[in-house]
Amino acid sequence: MRKLFYNGVIVTGEKGKIIKNGFIVVENGMIQTVESGDPRLSFHDIAERVNLNGHWVLPGLVNTHGHIGSTLLRGYGDDLPLDVWLKTKMWPMEGKFTEETIHAAASLAILEMQKSGTTTFLEMYHLHLETIAALVQQSGIRAVITRGMIGLCSYNEQEQKLTEAIHLSKSLKRFGDGRISTMLAPHAPYTCPPAFLEMIVLEAKKNNLPIHIHLSETAKEVNEHVEKYGKRPAIHLAELGVFDVHTLIAHGVHLDDEEFEVLANNRVAVSHNPISNLKLGSGIAKIPKMLSKNILVGLGTDSAASNNNLDMFQEMRMAALIHKGNLENATVVSAEEVLVMATKNGAKALALENIGVIQEGKEADFIVVDSQQPHLQPNDHVTSHIVYSASGADVLDVYVKGNCLVRNKQCLSLDEEKIIYEANRAFQNLLK
Amino acid sequence: MRKLFYNGVIVTGEKGKIIKNGFIVVENGMIQTVESGDPRLSFHDIAERVNLNGHWVLPGLVNTHGHIGSTLLRGYGDDLPLDVWLKTKMWPMEGKFTEETIHAAASLAILEMQKSGTTTFLEMYHLHLETIAALVQQSGIRAVITRGMIGLCSYNEQEQKLTEAIHLSKSLKRFGDGRISTMLAPHAPYTCPPAFLEMIVLEAKKNNLPIHIHLSETAKEVNEHVEKYGKRPAIHLAELGVFDVHTLIAHGVHLDDEEFEVLANNRVAVSHNPISNLKLGSGIAKIPKMLSKNILVGLGTDSAASNNNLDMFQEMRMAALIHKGNLENATVVSAEEVLVMATKNGAKALALENIGVIQEGKEADFIVVDSQQPHLQPNDHVTSHIVYSASGADVLDVYVKGNCLVRNKQCLSLDEEKIIYEANRAFQNLLK
Repeated sequence: MRKLFYNGVIVTGEKGKIIKNGFIVVENGMIQTVESGDPRLSFHDIAERVNLNGHWVLPGLVNTHGHIGSTLLRGYGDDLPLDVWLKTKMWPMEGKFTEETIHAAASLAILEMQKSGTTTFLEMYHLHLETIAALVQQSGIRAVITRGMIGLCSYNEQEQKLTEAIHLSKSLKRFGDGRISTMLAPHAPYTCPPAFLEMIVLEAKKNNLPIHIHLSETAKEVNEHVEKYGKRPAIHLAELGVFDVHTLIAHGVHLDDEEFEVLANNRVAVSHNPISNLKLGSGIAKIPKMLSKNILVGLGTDSAASNNNLDMFQEMRMAALIHKGNLENATVVSAEEVLVMATKNGAKALALENIGVIQEGKEADFIVVDSQQPHLQPNDHVTSHIVYSASGADVLDVYVKGNCLVRNKQCLSLDEEKIIYEANRAFQNLLK
Repeated sequence: MRKLFYNGVIVTGEKGKIIKNGFIVVENGMIQTVESGDPRLSFHDIAERVNLNGHWVLPGLVNTHGHIGSTLLRGYGDDLPLDVWLKTKMWPMEGKFTEETIHAAASLAILEMQKSGTTTFLEMYHLHLETIAALVQQSGIRAVITRGMIGLCSYNEQEQKLTEAIHLSKSLKRFGDGRISTMLAPHAPYTCPPAFLEMIVLEAKKNNLPIHIHLSETAKEVNEHVEKYGKRPAIHLAELGVFDVHTLIAHGVHLDDEEFEVLANNRVAVSHNPISNLKLGSGIAKIPKMLSKNILVGLGTDSAASNNNLDMFQEMRMAALIHKGNLENATVVSAEEVLVMATKNGAKALALENIGVIQEGKEADFIVVDSQQPHLQPNDHVTSHIVYSASGADVLDVYVKGNCLVRNKQCLSLDEEKIIYEANRAFQNLLK
C-alpha cells in the first residue's frame, strides 16, 4: 500500500537540508522516496494522496527521557528542590498508585505527546509496564519502555527486579507491532549499589540490551557519591562496566572534564532535559562542551511533574536558549543542532537507527506543522521558527510507520474526552 | 450595556486568589462585580450572557517591552551576539523599512499578541508610530507607544526627535478610545549622551510623562560605560534625574547591589525579558534579588527578532524556570509571583493602574484559557498550569474594555489571512 504526500516543505532532519516543494512516497510504513517537484504525474498510480498545503514536514520528535506513569502529579508540588520533592511529594503519592492511576496517567501523556508531535518516547517506570505497552499498541506511538530499578533493598529484591526487567524485555514485544523496544534501567548511582549495577551489566550483555540511567542530576548527589566512593559517578560507572554496552544517561548536569572524556570515549549518549533541570533547581548541563567532544545528545522532557508539559518543541526552544544565556554567548547551540538533537540524535541515543530522519529506507515517522500561524511569519526561516517560535500546538498531523495518528489536531487512535475525564477522576481518587 | 460572564474559574491576578465557579459582571467596559456562585437568578436582567464552561479566566497579559515594528525580522539573524546582530542584521534592514513594512510588521505582531492573550503591550520604535496607533485602534488592543530616541547625532537632530516624541504623546491620543498612552523613550545610556538625557528628563517632568529606557542589557555596554564615565549606568541615570519621574527600564541584566538600591529607592520598574536575554547571549537578570528588594518587575518579550515569538505564556514560563536553574534553587520565583509580574505588576510598570487584575472598578481586560487541554490535566493546579504548562495557543477568548477581540481562537477585529499574506510580501520586498 503506497501513499503520496506532496506540496510540502520537508525538513529532513539532516543538518540544514530542507526540500521546498517536496514530496514523500511511503510504502508499507517505510519512506520510499523523498524529493522535490510535483509528483502527481510521475506517481499517477498512487491513489492515496495527501496534499501538505505548503506546510512543514519534519521527522517525528523523539523524547529520550520520561516517566509517564507519574503524569497525574503535574503541578503537584512545584517550587521544591529535587530531594524534598521526591521524598515528600512524588514517592508518597506513588505509593498509592494503582493500575487505574497508571492507565489514566499514561493515556494522558501519550495523548499529549502525540498531539504535540512526539512519535517516540522513552519511559522509565516501575509499575504496570504492560498496561503502558498496551496503550502504546492502541495509540500507534513508538516507545522504549524500561523498568526503572532502585537497588536500595535486599539482594533478593534486587534479583526480583532484574528478573522482572529481563522478562519484560521479552514480554513487551507482544505489543506494538515492533514499535516497542526496551533497555535495562538502573535508577541512578545513588540508588543502585555497585554490586547491583554489576549484576545489571552482566544481564545487559547477555541479553544484548542497552542501559538507561539517571546520572549526575544534582550537585548534592555527586558530592555524596564522591564522599562515599572516592570517585565521581561517571568514572565509577565506567569502572563497573556500565558503559561497555550502549548507555543513555539522563541529565548529566554535573560532570567534569574527565567525565566528559569517559563519556566521549565510551560513546555514551546523553538525554538533555533542560526544563526539568531548571524547574528542580538542578542546574544547567554543559551541552556546548559535550557537543564539542562529539558526545551524542538527545532531548527529553522528564516527567510532567517536573516540566510541567511534554511538549518537545518547548524542550527544543529551551535547549537552544539556555546555553546562550548561561555562557553569555549567542553563537552556541544553533537551531539546526537542536532540531537534530530532537530527532536523529535522539533516535540514535535510543539505539533506534530506523527513524529520526526523513530519508529513503527509514520508517515513516513524521509530523506536519502548520506554517500559516502568525508567530511563524515571515515563513522563510523554517528551522529557526520550528526551534525558536513554534509549539506543540502548531502540529497538524502525526504519522508513525506511515499511519496517521493525528489529523488536523484530532487524535484518531485515542478518545481525548474520555482520557481527560479519567485523568481527573484518577487524580481525585489519589487525594482521598 | 451590561454583560454577564458565568461558570468560570477566575484567577483574579491578586496573589493566590482564585474564585472557583465564579462570575463577572461588566458594565461599559468596567468590571462591576466579581464573585462566586450561580448569578443567573440574581442577575436575571442581564440579557447578554457568556457561559465560560468551567474555563480559566485571567487578567489580560501585559507585555512591558517590545519593538513590533521589527517583527518581519523574526528568524533573520539568529545565533549572533547583540552588537553584531544589531549592526549587521537589524539596523541595515531597518534602513530599508517603509510604511508598508511597519504596517505589515505591526499588524502581524498585534494579531499574534491578541491571539496569545496579550491585551496591553509597550512599543518602543521610531518609525510610523501613527500607523501603529491606527492599528491599535482597529484591533481593540491596549498600548503604550513610545518613540525610541537614539541620541548619537547633532543637537538639532536630538531636539527634532524629542519634539516629535512630545508631539506624538499628544497626537496618538486621537487613536484608540483611551487605550493608548505614551512614555518618553531614550534608547539607552550607551546611545544617549548625558546632555540629551537631561533634555528628555526636563520634558518628561514638564509633560508629566514616564520614561522607558534600555538599561544594562549586556556586560559589554556596562563596562564601556564605566570606562567612559567612571560610574555604572544606573547610578549615572539617577544622577541625571532620569529616575525623578516614573521610569521603566528594560532588561537590567547586569546590575550590581548598589544599583539595585538605587532602583529600589527610586521605585524604578524593571521589564524582565528572559528569553531575549538568553537568545542574544546577554545573560540572566538577577530577578530573585530584585524581588527581595521589592523592585517592581514586569515581563516583556522584546522583539520577535530576538525571541522569536510574542507569546507571554512562554515568557512567564521562562521567568519561573530560569532563576531556579541558574541559582540551583527550586524555591525562587514561584508561579504565583510570575503571574503577578505578567499582569498586575506589568500594568503598574506601565503606569496603568486601571488594569492588571480582575477586580471591581478595573477595566474589563481579561482572557479565557481552555482548561480542557491534555497538558493542563489534572486541572486542579490552575496557576501552576498557566505558568508551567500552558501556551498562547490555549487562549480561547480575549476581552479588552469588555469588548471581545478574540472568540474561540478567531480574531474578530483583524483579517488574519490578509495580515499573513502581507507580512510575507513585505518581507520579500525587503530582500529585493
